[in-house]
Amino acid sequence: MAYWVSKHIKEGGVTSPQGFKASGVACGLKPNEALDLSLVTSDTLCAAAGVFTTNVFQAAPVAYDRALIESRRGVQAVVINTGSANACTGNQGKADVLTTVKAAGELLGIDPETVLVMSTGVIGKPLPMDKLIPGLRQAAQQLAATDDAALQAARAIMTTDTHPKQAALKVTGPTGDYTIAGMVKGAGMIEPHVATMLCLITTDAPVTQPLLQIALAEAAGRTFNCITIDGDMSTNDTVLVLANGASGISPIDDPQQEAYDVFADALETLMLELAQAVVRDGEGATRFITIEVQGARDRAQAHQVGKAVANSKLVKTAIYGQDANWGRIVCAAGYSQAGIAPETVSVWLGDQQLVREGAPYEIDEERSSALLAKTDIDITIDLGQGEERATIWTCDLTHRYIDINAHYRS
Amino acid sequence: MAYWVSKHIKEGGVTSPQGFKASGVACGLKPNEALDLSLVTSDTLCAAAGVFTTNVFQAAPVAYDRALIESRRGVQAVVINTGSANACTGNQGKADVLTTVKAAGELLGIDPETVLVMSTGVIGKPLPMDKLIPGLRQAAQQLAATDDAALQAARAIMTTDTHPKQAALKVTGPTGDYTIAGMVKGAGMIEPHVATMLCLITTDAPVTQPLLQIALAEAAGRTFNCITIDGDMSTNDTVLVLANGASGISPIDDPQQEAYDVFADALETLMLELAQAVVRDGEGATRFITIEVQGARDRAQAHQVGKAVANSKLVKTAIYGQDANWGRIVCAAGYSQAGIAPETVSVWLGDQQLVREGAPYEIDEERSSALLAKTDIDITIDLGQGEERATIWTCDLTHRYIDINAHYRS
Repeated sequence: MAYWVSKHIKEGGVTSPQGFKASGVACGLKPNEALDLSLVTSDTLCAAAGVFTTNVFQAAPVAYDRALIESRRGVQAVVINTGSANACTGNQGKADVLTTVKAAGELLGIDPETVLVMSTGVIGKPLPMDKLIPGLRQAAQQLAATDDAALQAARAIMTTDTHPKQAALKVTGPTGDYTIAGMVKGAGMIEPHVATMLCLITTDAPVTQPLLQIALAEAAGRTFNCITIDGDMSTNDTVLVLANGASGISPIDDPQQEAYDVFADALETLMLELAQAVVRDGEGATRFITIEVQGARDRAQAHQVGKAVANSKLVKTAIYGQDANWGRIVCAAGYSQAGIAPETVSVWLGDQQLVREGAPYEIDEERSSALLAKTDIDITIDLGQGEERATIWTCDLTHRYIDINAHYRS
Repeated sequence: MAYWVSKHIKEGGVTSPQGFKASGVACGLKPNEALDLSLVTSDTLCAAAGVFTTNVFQAAPVAYDRALIESRRGVQAVVINTGSANACTGNQGKADVLTTVKAAGELLGIDPETVLVMSTGVIGKPLPMDKLIPGLRQAAQQLAATDDAALQAARAIMTTDTHPKQAALKVTGPTGDYTIAGMVKGAGMIEPHVATMLCLITTDAPVTQPLLQIALAEAAGRTFNCITIDGDMSTNDTVLVLANGASGISPIDDPQQEAYDVFADALETLMLELAQAVVRDGEGATRFITIEVQGARDRAQAHQVGKAVANSKLVKTAIYGQDANWGRIVCAAGYSQAGIAPETVSVWLGDQQLVREGAPYEIDEERSSALLAKTDIDITIDLGQGEERATIWTCDLTHRYIDINAHYRS
């Protein structure tokens, strides 16, 4: 890893990098006058990268954004609405995306083909354009480069999230300083295969498009692709990065550059922080669970075992109930179809070993209970087959999750 | 399908076929003097077949039974205990199985190598042999061929099941009459890849061992392998069939025989009934959900889509909440990685079409709500790619499931 320094910017968000503005408004997409529409713009064209859901029922904005990102053209604005996912909405859904980018282009005085759209909410419900377009006008008027504007934007993308989630890093790289920041929303239907629900990252680092896409895809593999709330992959998962170069440092355009390594590290650091924030705010979550799988033949094996354990309803409910039922952990690892050998598997809860080479190991129930009373739970699984590892982050499965999801639409 | 008649035997169970006895006793494996140990015996040696969990952490009794079944030797008794799964118990677990079959052999005056063992309960907890062996003695003394004895045996294998589950069919086949019966326990950690938790089937039909194994494996693929409660596959899943031939009809020993087809059909009918009983008694279940996937390229594709929908926590909670949130159904189908094409997918709730070729279709929310107020929910998904189909049965995900599993061991 290259030498570099990064520092959190207190209360920073998508407007922390130079040359970005944001706003969040309420236009009736959500009830009770809650903020429900975000707009983020750059003063100049940005290199843009994106990773998207692999769900075959991809939403209209996902298909639109993917095509625009793949064209490698510049991007200058992102519109994010809640209330409707604009997924399974057929031709009307596609037309509504085009109407949205056209309206944004006119309001902002920019080319409509430099506008991206992200949507979250109920699947199959058409976008209420009669509310969205006036909301967009209001959002364009309120654009500002302040921390408060970034916070409003982060609030306006929330659905069942309990609080806005954002972060900003000031990076001192080998060629100068820049800032990288992002906002994200969760909080259910989350087992991203390439991305989480919605995440928008801004930076004033001058990273060229192909490199930005590589850095994003690699970081997503170790961050958003390693979290799971409920194992349900959305139709809308999207992570976007906009790089406008406003920091004025020399271009980051070569993967052999130390400056590129520094940028890639900083991006991963920021994305990990945002991904973990999504897990901590998972629907109904009371526990933040880190599952470290080591001793694997390869990373894919470690990942597969970690995901099976993280998605086990029985593991998640046991942790909710503060029950050190380690049998459920080995059981889930056992059906993961990852080719593990029971007799070489060891399991720890925190620093307490529960299983040694497939058999129970001096379990101290009192100490286990004390560990499970904490908010942060660490589970380590050693497969005893090799040197590779992967970490998966998840949360517990609680009564509140059922409350939230039994009546989401009503 | 061959011509044959089968009739349910009211209050029938594993003792309904001729030559079988059973008992269920309380020996302190469960608290509150609940029945916790079952014994089922045949007067004569039986052909025995079995299908087992594919979890690599297979319990000691699973490994033992599998080896005995594969040896194709006869079987004369099955001991089933609750309280401990005897899984992840190392050499002690293996030794405890051997002690159990030896004790059973002595008590029953039969070869210990004709005794099978099934265990269910907490993983990693050693079998309390000081309670099990006296319990076995008591069970041997109480063996009887009555309906009441079968019911006691079915009660004694329950864990979180709310009621005993058994069924018996009187079959009139082309070569004479016989009976086939079974008992089963659920109710969580259930997504069998080859079997459900524990199911024991008895028959007085004279089916030879290789044919019995084929009939069982085929029927399991269309019954127990098509149910899911929570997606967690146990370390102990086992279905056993014992055929003692006491009906006296001529041997069923040729897969070309009409009598074999009749037997295979009857076995599948009985197993489907038992498998569906497990789903209806799923932990915390309030709804019995049938997911019919049709228009598939092949059965595997239909099965994969059905399982993804059945295991979606969001689909299951929406049905619990009586919310016709069909977007969650298409979303789960969309991430099933079964190679479906959104534009050819249609979805029905009961007889009401919700999705037509990937887009919403004249949804009548009131009618949907009325359909979802019923106990039995039918979802049909047409993939529009071929002629094959599969049916998956599951239940909803409820507050009560969380209650049960957050504190299972305490």
